[in-house]
Amino acid sequence: MKKKSFPQSEVYRLLEPGPVVLVTTVRAGRGNVMPMSWHLMMEFVPPLVGCVISNRNYTFETLKRTGECVINIPAVELAEKVVACGNASGRWVDKFKAFGLTPVAAACVKAPLIAECYASMECKVVDRKLVSKYNFFVLKVVQAWIDPTRKRPRTIHHQGEGEFMVAGRIIHLPSPKTSLAG
Amino acid sequence: MKKKSFPQSEVYRLLEPGPVVLVTTVRAGRGNVMPMSWHLMMEFVPPLVGCVISNRNYTFETLKRTGECVINIPAVELAEKVVACGNASGRWVDKFKAFGLTPVAAACVKAPLIAECYASMECKVVDRKLVSKYNFFVLKVVQAWIDPTRKRPRTIHHQGEGEFMVAGRIIHLPSPKTSLAG
Repeated sequence: MKKKSFPQSEVYRLLEPGPVVLVTTVRAGRGNVMPMSWHLMMEFVPPLVGCVISNRNYTFETLKRTGECVINIPAVELAEKVVACGNASGRWVDKFKAFGLTPVAAACVKAPLIAECYASMECKVVDRKLVSKYNFFVLKVVQAWIDPTRKRPRTIHHQGEGEFMVAGRIIHLPSPKTSLAG
Repeated sequence: MKKKSFPQSEVYRLLEPGPVVLVTTVRAGRGNVMPMSWHLMMEFVPPLVGCVISNRNYTFETLKRTGECVINIPAVELAEKVVACGNASGRWVDKFKAFGLTPVAAACVKAPLIAECYASMECKVVDRKLVSKYNFFVLKVVQAWIDPTRKRPRTIHHQGEGEFMVAGRIIHLPSPKTSLAG
């Protein structure tokens, strides 16, 4: 595998811009993949990530039962596979096989990383207080990975109704803070 | 004002891509502005938005007390003002005056809209269960506004350490679902 361990303190830089991610889980020995856009950072170190997953989704039940997942970040080259994953259910389809994604064993959780994604975060559920009311899970990133050969991955950002914004140019502005949330 | 009322069912399309937003609040008659990137959609209609606001920020105390704010979305033309707002505190500075932003009266809350932002969402706090542990507020959007003359606003997306991604090209992929969170 090309991915290298990525520092926990830098995880927010991957998720704060709001990319579509692919959430992997495993149940009865079979992996599943679900695209997700409803996520936010909640803490720098250890990195906490909040996310809403519809309770109509197979991933919702799996995450509730197993308490583990991997958040993978695809670049624009995978956009069609991302949409395909969103239009099928893991109840009926092995999405790894159906859409040509490659599962890779994680270090700390049973859910697999996706080889084709440039970054992956192994996560454990740490707070379920808002699950029943909002389908909102709090996850802790226990191990993060990145493909260091991908210099400028173009993430995709969902705008609804099949419309995605592709990450554009980078600008730098002086800021003493690590995050605008501060 | 050029802004027009925007349908509640479309609000997720503004926030789901993950732009930096400017949160306005009002306290003792004076408005304040804070940039924020740690937010997510939690429900379509009525639109619910979750956000983490550091308890070191003036906005945190104000939002806790008043239960009201406006989420405004700036485009890249405002990037320098966004950073300036993030590097000053409303305890000491009137940021509207200091950075040349124009407050506009809202319809349902006391906090002002920002005229220079292309979209604004008037919000009320509806759940404080995770405030003490994670500084996490659940907001309901009670009224949304958009400037219909802005056809392709280029949002900015914070990548940490003064680095921002500017929204790039749009791609369309067939998807029967309104949201990848589904």
